[in-house]
Amino acid sequence: MEHGMVSDRIRMASLRDKIVSAEEAASYIKDGMVVGMSGFTRAGEAKAVPMALAERARKEPLKITLMTGASLGNDLDKTMAEAHLLSRRLPFQSDPALRREINDGEVMFIDQHLSETVELLRSRQIRPIDVAVIEAIAITESGGIVPTTSVGNSATFAILAEKVIVEININQTTALEGVHDIYIPSRRPHRQPIPITNPDDRPGLGYIPVDPAKIVAIVETGKKDSTSNILDPDDETEAIARHLTRFFEGEVAAGRLGLSLQPLQAGIGTIANAVLHGFIDSPFKDLTMYSEVLQDSTFDLIDAGKMLFASGSSITLSKARDEAVMPNFARYRDKLVLRPQEISNHPEVIRRLGLIAINTALEADIYGNVNSTHVNGTHIMNGIGGSGDFARNAYLSVFVTKSVAKGGAISSIVPFVSHVDHCEHDVDLIVTEQGLADLRGLAPRERAKLIIENCTHPDYRPALQAYYDEAVKRGGQTPHCMEKVFAWHLAYKEKGTMKAAF
Amino acid sequence: MEHGMVSDRIRMASLRDKIVSAEEAASYIKDGMVVGMSGFTRAGEAKAVPMALAERARKEPLKITLMTGASLGNDLDKTMAEAHLLSRRLPFQSDPALRREINDGEVMFIDQHLSETVELLRSRQIRPIDVAVIEAIAITESGGIVPTTSVGNSATFAILAEKVIVEININQTTALEGVHDIYIPSRRPHRQPIPITNPDDRPGLGYIPVDPAKIVAIVETGKKDSTSNILDPDDETEAIARHLTRFFEGEVAAGRLGLSLQPLQAGIGTIANAVLHGFIDSPFKDLTMYSEVLQDSTFDLIDAGKMLFASGSSITLSKARDEAVMPNFARYRDKLVLRPQEISNHPEVIRRLGLIAINTALEADIYGNVNSTHVNGTHIMNGIGGSGDFARNAYLSVFVTKSVAKGGAISSIVPFVSHVDHCEHDVDLIVTEQGLADLRGLAPRERAKLIIENCTHPDYRPALQAYYDEAVKRGGQTPHCMEKVFAWHLAYKEKGTMKAAF
Repeated sequence: MEHGMVSDRIRMASLRDKIVSAEEAASYIKDGMVVGMSGFTRAGEAKAVPMALAERARKEPLKITLMTGASLGNDLDKTMAEAHLLSRRLPFQSDPALRREINDGEVMFIDQHLSETVELLRSRQIRPIDVAVIEAIAITESGGIVPTTSVGNSATFAILAEKVIVEININQTTALEGVHDIYIPSRRPHRQPIPITNPDDRPGLGYIPVDPAKIVAIVETGKKDSTSNILDPDDETEAIARHLTRFFEGEVAAGRLGLSLQPLQAGIGTIANAVLHGFIDSPFKDLTMYSEVLQDSTFDLIDAGKMLFASGSSITLSKARDEAVMPNFARYRDKLVLRPQEISNHPEVIRRLGLIAINTALEADIYGNVNSTHVNGTHIMNGIGGSGDFARNAYLSVFVTKSVAKGGAISSIVPFVSHVDHCEHDVDLIVTEQGLADLRGLAPRERAKLIIENCTHPDYRPALQAYYDEAVKRGGQTPHCMEKVFAWHLAYKEKGTMKAAF
Repeated sequence: MEHGMVSDRIRMASLRDKIVSAEEAASYIKDGMVVGMSGFTRAGEAKAVPMALAERARKEPLKITLMTGASLGNDLDKTMAEAHLLSRRLPFQSDPALRREINDGEVMFIDQHLSETVELLRSRQIRPIDVAVIEAIAITESGGIVPTTSVGNSATFAILAEKVIVEININQTTALEGVHDIYIPSRRPHRQPIPITNPDDRPGLGYIPVDPAKIVAIVETGKKDSTSNILDPDDETEAIARHLTRFFEGEVAAGRLGLSLQPLQAGIGTIANAVLHGFIDSPFKDLTMYSEVLQDSTFDLIDAGKMLFASGSSITLSKARDEAVMPNFARYRDKLVLRPQEISNHPEVIRRLGLIAINTALEADIYGNVNSTHVNGTHIMNGIGGSGDFARNAYLSVFVTKSVAKGGAISSIVPFVSHVDHCEHDVDLIVTEQGLADLRGLAPRERAKLIIENCTHPDYRPALQAYYDEAVKRGGQTPHCMEKVFAWHLAYKEKGTMKAAF
């Protein structure tokens, strides 16, 4: 890395003497502080300062509250967790080492709807940010920060923080400049409508506007983003995609949707990615996306001429896709926008545009309540993420999951979910490789019939039907046998398979 | 009732020959139809046609799907349920006889967020309305329908229905004209922002615009709305109000809120009404309201000079308050607006204005999940109503409940709620007469400590603490003893008191 390069990227000349080492920059962060860092779905996270902090935490008492956009790449959460740097963490994470500390009660984890963190900060309902650390491709002539592959919460973190540290990553392409749209809602109660009525509207700025006097340090970095670890489509994810494509064909035939459907949102991960990928061989066209993370499938659909435009908060690609897309980013730039996650996930915009929201369930129950976060009701995996923002406000809220996990030892469809992230009212379709349950306009007893018959794995279907039959004899809007709602979960814990319960 | 009077209220002369008996009007409604009726929180419901339908259902096969705004007065749901007229009912009800049929599985009840019913109708995701029956004070020169004491879903029901029946209630005061604001969001994906940035904005019309050719019958009625059955404040509701007033005083002192707070929403019922009533003797001033139902406390606050303006979807008063307010309604009219419930409860507006939302919990658990609807996990009471619209999108989401019910046999704070309507992320404060838990920015383990210590009744506190202590030993982000999460509920069911569990 040549020093000249990073200077070229600092267009406000007076800021060039702020270039320091990561260690020196990290020295602005003291024990007990609240730190807001860039990073969303392993994209665009600050990379050097957190490592320097972890290094210090191994030698001196240093605990911080860390807020990010969402998950971080480059094993940063792992490194920080193992250095015992984190006392509090919000609003999302996906790292096994950090997860262990969270579930042990060592790190207080505040799992939040991703649109809400900066709303709480802005209204000072949670502790304010002392220092923001933001990865950038450049600093503009006016001192504006141009983010890299994610916007996440970076804009509001930088705007509200007392001090700002910028990490300029010289290996993030400058072709990203122009893809960002930084719109910040005004403060309540005097807020105006968010001026977005189409996925491609751009009411904001191309950079994060901050007072340059707040920029206390600039660090040069070059580490790349981690690539995604999604798996290729398999028979089951292809079946899920097929069920859903057939459903949408029915909606088009019934005149409820046009061939461009409604703007699409898809959660992160293998299944949602596979579902979107499935649209390549569909009759749908002129698709648009208004989502959080833009994954491989977004670019596949653009390349296939199926998708006109995609709005997100980050870009997270597989290694192969990253190598094909990033060097040619200018080709995609006018078909994409990256927004603050508060805007990509804003209830106002989601409801107005009428999204089709496709998210992954960890488990669903016979009435269509969904657990997205907790294993066996107690141990968190990642977090609720944006699924709550989208499922509640979408035109159509779809949850996808394979019907079984752990080689069949776990049924993803259970009598009663062990943790509720999405209540029945926010779940319109449940799709597994077995089939699809269209729950719109149905009462709980009608929902149960469809979910048991269409979505449940044959190994579990008779037992689930028997549970339901017994529950119905006892009555209720939502019949249950309360003394054994978690019998399957307990059986899995004690005997290694839910099947031991029947 | 004189026939001349109703003619005077039909200002479009050509519609005057549509006046028929309730029975004749009801004959437009056939077996199997979907019927949308006015009525929200026992206010402004169609009163004659449903009685005529119930009468017919006693003599001939007649089953309908009935949609309303929310609950109906004058025992209409009871009469229709007992006549076995209803096969499906949405999106809310509060009648014991109907509740029994729902819990027996005789009537399919689709419990919905109150802002969503007409959204689903508009996008044709549920069966369309054949006939709408709307109570009105008048029909305008252009055939527009002027609602009475509620707007609810009446506007969209009438606009989308194939046929419209109007019930002109000559005992609803014409002074109501001018209080309504009928704004209907445009269809998606081409929807524009809802142009409301203050509780007193009036972007709509004073009447429901319908094609007069769709008005097939007009019925004259005179029955009054049922008055509310809320109870007077007692020691416990006063304590809840006191805790909350003190909390808001702290927020003002910390500079997070001004003395006018943020626009207020309060759920229907005794406790929420008492909390608002408590603001009369508070330092707060220039209050506004953006809520669903305007109850006694709204008028008390206006009379006390504490509240400047109140937006709602209906007016439901006690007998004494009704007798004082309605004959003098013109005095209040410019301080009030009644909107479609889709607008009063719209996530876009709720989030933009930044409401303080105060709703009632049936039970809450140690992590702050809330059950608003189901007794013992299975049997529904009323429905989720608007609480989901408000709690998810509010500036501050408050849930209030007395700490015990049934003379102490039930604790409202339990290890694990038996049904989840509001997940932990949507619950900022829990308040009982015991105290207040401010959950903002806290992790589940921290939430549990506050809820157990501050909100739980002393009779249950040691047992709840013991449950939690054992759960924490097992670990997790949300520690639980999964084999006994519902032990308290089962003990109540078997032995008549939750205390039998410990």
